[in-house]
Amino acid sequence: MEKKKGKQERIGLVIVNTGNGKGKTTAALGTALRAVGSGFNVFMVQFIKGPWKAGEHVIAEKLKPNFEIRRMGEGFTWNTKDRERDTEVAAEAWSFCKELIEKEKHDLLIFDEINVAMDLGYLDPAEVVDAVKKKPKLMHIILTGRGAPEVLIDAADLVTEMREIKHPFNAGIYAQKGIEF
Amino acid sequence: MEKKKGKQERIGLVIVNTGNGKGKTTAALGTALRAVGSGFNVFMVQFIKGPWKAGEHVIAEKLKPNFEIRRMGEGFTWNTKDRERDTEVAAEAWSFCKELIEKEKHDLLIFDEINVAMDLGYLDPAEVVDAVKKKPKLMHIILTGRGAPEVLIDAADLVTEMREIKHPFNAGIYAQKGIEF
Repeated sequence: MEKKKGKQERIGLVIVNTGNGKGKTTAALGTALRAVGSGFNVFMVQFIKGPWKAGEHVIAEKLKPNFEIRRMGEGFTWNTKDRERDTEVAAEAWSFCKELIEKEKHDLLIFDEINVAMDLGYLDPAEVVDAVKKKPKLMHIILTGRGAPEVLIDAADLVTEMREIKHPFNAGIYAQKGIEF
Repeated sequence: MEKKKGKQERIGLVIVNTGNGKGKTTAALGTALRAVGSGFNVFMVQFIKGPWKAGEHVIAEKLKPNFEIRRMGEGFTWNTKDRERDTEVAAEAWSFCKELIEKEKHDLLIFDEINVAMDLGYLDPAEVVDAVKKKPKLMHIILTGRGAPEVLIDAADLVTEMREIKHPFNAGIYAQKGIEF
């Protein structure tokens, strides 16, 4: 690939937060906060329903109408053994994401934990990469979750791996409300 | 170290975000957002003055009085060659952090980029670790920045390394307002 000379051009980035450590979703949330502070419209689609993540929804309410979070697949936790249902839910969430890209109404879209859906074979990475590549020029998209596929990493502008160095659960401490969920 | 059995106890965590990648500060901001959403009082002390980080200050205003950000050392960017001045500024910022710990008025403190100050020799890691270990039991503290010293990692509950896999600057793209600053 040709290495271009840096220029101060406005351009929408494709950002991937992956790895086995903490901070993939949280960094996306922090970016959302910063983006809203800069006057951006932000939409976050959550592919995985966690039972715990209450805090960000409270804040999203405060930041309306510039920040919206939608959780897809009520009750869906990736723990089901029902691959058919999981695939359906993932497809539905993805179809909603594609609509958001095509609508061009947001400056930043966050597809939270979408990498997991691809990693588990519920979504075709090629289809995701194709849609992301066709995004409006100025739109930023963040894709989070462990196991980001190579084709996505190749297509992305900014990729960070969050690596777990130490986790409190290993010392017998459970996740703490308000911090980890 | 003895491995304790997990229990659902409330406890304040010492969290370290380090590494050469993006997302260390941003994940801390995201955690702040979640914490405020859970009713926590959060204070973020920024050790490094970046010229760009406007977005989070706008949002902090919206989240007041539960979220405060204070930037220490106006004009201080770690680029000065004046080690004496840098050491003074770092000492002042740290003394403010220690006061915040002792005041016990916050549920979550974020010492943003403090690791860099230790890494550059402006702050004594042993002193930081000592103060952090004496924190109130339920208080959470997040310390960010590359080059987190080993003694801090040893003392921390949760450590994540953000690793740069791919950065847009390498493809000739400058940092994007609203996303990276």
